[in-house]
Amino acid sequence: MRRAAFAAALLLGPSTAAWADTLIDNVRGTTVGANGQVEQFTGLLFDDAGTIKRVIHAGDRKPRPRKEYQYHLDGQGRVMLPGMIDAHVHVMDIGFAALSLDLSDTTSLADALNRIAKFSAEHPDRPWIIGRGWNQETWQLGRFPTAAELDAVTGGRPVWLQRVDGHAGWANSAALKAAGVTAATKDPAGGSLDRAPDGSPRGVLVDAAMELIDAKVPAPRPEDRDLALANAQQILFKRGITAVADMGTGIEDWQAYRRAGDANRLYVRIMAYARGPEQMVLIGGPGPSPWLYQDRLRLNGVKLYVDGALGSRGAWLKAPYADAPETRGLPQLNQTQLGNLMSRAAMDNFQVAVHAIGDEANATVIGAITDLSETYKGDRRWRIEHAQILDPKDIARFARSGAIASMQPVHQTSDRVMAEARLGPERLAGAYAWKSLKAAGVRLAFGSDAPVEVADPWAGLAAAMSRQGPDGQPEGGWQPQERVSPAEALAAYTADAAYAGFAEGKFGRLAPGLRADFVLVDTDPLTANPAQVRATKVLETWIGGGKVWSAENGLETGTPSTR
Amino acid sequence: MRRAAFAAALLLGPSTAAWADTLIDNVRGTTVGANGQVEQFTGLLFDDAGTIKRVIHAGDRKPRPRKEYQYHLDGQGRVMLPGMIDAHVHVMDIGFAALSLDLSDTTSLADALNRIAKFSAEHPDRPWIIGRGWNQETWQLGRFPTAAELDAVTGGRPVWLQRVDGHAGWANSAALKAAGVTAATKDPAGGSLDRAPDGSPRGVLVDAAMELIDAKVPAPRPEDRDLALANAQQILFKRGITAVADMGTGIEDWQAYRRAGDANRLYVRIMAYARGPEQMVLIGGPGPSPWLYQDRLRLNGVKLYVDGALGSRGAWLKAPYADAPETRGLPQLNQTQLGNLMSRAAMDNFQVAVHAIGDEANATVIGAITDLSETYKGDRRWRIEHAQILDPKDIARFARSGAIASMQPVHQTSDRVMAEARLGPERLAGAYAWKSLKAAGVRLAFGSDAPVEVADPWAGLAAAMSRQGPDGQPEGGWQPQERVSPAEALAAYTADAAYAGFAEGKFGRLAPGLRADFVLVDTDPLTANPAQVRATKVLETWIGGGKVWSAENGLETGTPSTR
Repeated sequence: MRRAAFAAALLLGPSTAAWADTLIDNVRGTTVGANGQVEQFTGLLFDDAGTIKRVIHAGDRKPRPRKEYQYHLDGQGRVMLPGMIDAHVHVMDIGFAALSLDLSDTTSLADALNRIAKFSAEHPDRPWIIGRGWNQETWQLGRFPTAAELDAVTGGRPVWLQRVDGHAGWANSAALKAAGVTAATKDPAGGSLDRAPDGSPRGVLVDAAMELIDAKVPAPRPEDRDLALANAQQILFKRGITAVADMGTGIEDWQAYRRAGDANRLYVRIMAYARGPEQMVLIGGPGPSPWLYQDRLRLNGVKLYVDGALGSRGAWLKAPYADAPETRGLPQLNQTQLGNLMSRAAMDNFQVAVHAIGDEANATVIGAITDLSETYKGDRRWRIEHAQILDPKDIARFARSGAIASMQPVHQTSDRVMAEARLGPERLAGAYAWKSLKAAGVRLAFGSDAPVEVADPWAGLAAAMSRQGPDGQPEGGWQPQERVSPAEALAAYTADAAYAGFAEGKFGRLAPGLRADFVLVDTDPLTANPAQVRATKVLETWIGGGKVWSAENGLETGTPSTR
Repeated sequence: MRRAAFAAALLLGPSTAAWADTLIDNVRGTTVGANGQVEQFTGLLFDDAGTIKRVIHAGDRKPRPRKEYQYHLDGQGRVMLPGMIDAHVHVMDIGFAALSLDLSDTTSLADALNRIAKFSAEHPDRPWIIGRGWNQETWQLGRFPTAAELDAVTGGRPVWLQRVDGHAGWANSAALKAAGVTAATKDPAGGSLDRAPDGSPRGVLVDAAMELIDAKVPAPRPEDRDLALANAQQILFKRGITAVADMGTGIEDWQAYRRAGDANRLYVRIMAYARGPEQMVLIGGPGPSPWLYQDRLRLNGVKLYVDGALGSRGAWLKAPYADAPETRGLPQLNQTQLGNLMSRAAMDNFQVAVHAIGDEANATVIGAITDLSETYKGDRRWRIEHAQILDPKDIARFARSGAIASMQPVHQTSDRVMAEARLGPERLAGAYAWKSLKAAGVRLAFGSDAPVEVADPWAGLAAAMSRQGPDGQPEGGWQPQERVSPAEALAAYTADAAYAGFAEGKFGRLAPGLRADFVLVDTDPLTANPAQVRATKVLETWIGGGKVWSAENGLETGTPSTR
């Protein structure tokens, strides 16, 4: 059977010139170049598929209307930057946090009840109302609040609200009923119920008794996950974040990302790291996924843990805690175990990102990477997440290992008092040691760890260049020798955060052939002072040549979503 | 910020006429129409996206070259039919069966060893060699075969081969070693080892002892699943099958389908039914998936089981088994339990397909559907899978329930002797009662249950129109009043099988607007006798306007895969 072709010329596509291309000019543009250098520009020309065709610099020939572009936007002199990349977030948790009620700034029981009633009315589809942050002391209530008080504003839907310290919870009658908590319920070991004189539960459950309710809070439904993802995207866009590394993706998260992608509701770019080796294989199969949905989703690899957190003294230290000399922390894996898990991932070309907080934890990961590099050659981009406390002696080894340091500047400002207590004065030289790592040749990728911290790259940039908190404290910055330059901080939030996720050929810079992911903001982070950078107002967020958010309209749902 | 548009006319797409359209003419075409009527045609015109633009009938004006099509294929008078749809298969199991070695037709130990050596050489990447079907009696060996004999042809890779009856397995030394089976291994309860005089295991393990090796056979790796899917597609295309209902999809299967779709390696159309409610939610989330990959994959709903199989007396009967009066079978769910599971699925618009073999099982499903139809209005398309043994009194209820009967004609011919033994002569009137169901108004969807039976729609068509096996027995057909006409059988393998999966607007017929899924074969099933239909040779298989298989070249990998 013969297949005859006529008129091959007819098969050519439409002219590639000016096919619905868009020019944005009159911007004060800044991007980090391929070699980390700062580049200034005045306009951006991108095609209908959302790919950058030209970056226009001052003095360049201007693109010709109709011939080189169809759409024109006047940037009105605003600052244009590459879309911010948060190299360490928990996407679904950002969204779930937004689906719960924050009572931490309520000033009275009445204030709290008003807020609860409002939240309840705004979220009629939530099966339970979940919240946290109340404090009867701040309210000067002189007693715990009660289920009856909640019932009056929430009706028959279960409500469960954690106290500010996480050591008590306040339930309404529907939640007590769902958990079968009655006068006959005995106080569990390590917990108690606030009771009326007749023994019936008043509504607050303390410590181990909280588990009675916690066990009945329904697991998220798929539609809850979809809603959480939508919320997370909006939260990220509002801060100018166009791409993230998702640290600890489970199959249910992945399925939510794919549902959004399949339905053209996935706008943000997600570089995913699976929650351990089993989820890695379930999600990725024989290796990392391809880039999906026009470079909006990829399973890059796996997230592993080698220790815990500093605050809870889970971080694994070389020497005992200054404020708890009986412990050096809680290692989760020794170097051999870690090496085996990393090897399992690396043999199938999955990227490995290892959580390491303490100096012993970091030394262990560096050791494992150094060993594995003998076997797994090539471009592996081992990542150390947090890399928070380093023995200064290990910084050169860190650099030699080729590992990427994925760090969160705001952790430094949030943690400094606690870190000083945990570590004592002797071990601060290698704490949050951004500049030392950079100077040694380590590539930095910056992020927020949201929702642990707010996903705010402007706060991150400000902290990175100042080592000061939002209050400007401490004067002159904490361990100020570890400040990085504004350009170095910007690189870590853009080009190098993309590199850390194998995305440097796709986004993270504004250059021809890359995706047109950018923000328009009111402040130039390279010339403003830290306080101004922290106060940056995001005006518009664009992904793949489509506007996804503006200060004027919020979420820009009219944006072509397939770009 | 204003967005100005120039020259809107330039934004129009290329001319829609003749844009790489293809004409296949000079065919003897037959399709089932929207109302079940048979339609004859002589040619098919489809566009570059694989969608049918025109069906050309004898006497129609001929499409003009260049103006109406760019490519032309002469059908050379061959028979063109819609691609066959197998309404009940297990896709991955088809592929896995092809990855194991079938020894059932070996005639001697030497013959078997040759086959094992050949298979081993052909599959160097399989971690274990798995097979079945050997019989030392057929070989006239007078003893069990040994590990040493296997070692000579398989080397250090583990080999594990089940005997024809499934009651013994033959391991090589590597498999014995992997399982830690030595002279010190005791015979387990209900099992034994074939041993040398010194007590060392010779290689064959009987009954419960097989579990020692079974437990060590590695679970399929993602790359094994990918290979199985590729094999399954080739097996289906060779028989002219272009779409299937996959009954019992798990998340790992789904991930393999998506990997293939993401990589443009998914050609067959899969209508998936999840393996139970948990997998349904994990795969589909809040409801059925959209049609993905140009209508090649959709999670339609869930597969449930209400009983077992007739052969093993698991089918749930109204009266005791004729050959085992102490039992009526093994119900897996009562009507209330079944109704709850169906309700859980239906409330999120998942389609429900329930396995029911025995007459009591079928009555139970019909009852549940009748009850649920009060609550879940609209187009639910409840499916009963197999619907094998019906109480004739239930056939009218079946029709009133609106359920689709998803039946496998070849089961009738394979099972008839066994069915007569199980049921006795009194209960055969409602067995495999295709015609009675059709006459009562029930829509039939035909399939194979592959790999339980070969995925061969031509054998199915022949059985459906004859009630005879491949040997032509029994003369005149078994319960011949239940034969269906060739046109009815063809509808059940095409248009109605598509309808049963909510795909009637996408494929299953050859009509404008539907996907160009078709086969070219050497036999017209509407005019040939059953033996001829059974011997049909598939010449070419096309999906979405792309050739995926030909008798000449096998898999047509050059086909544009994104169609």
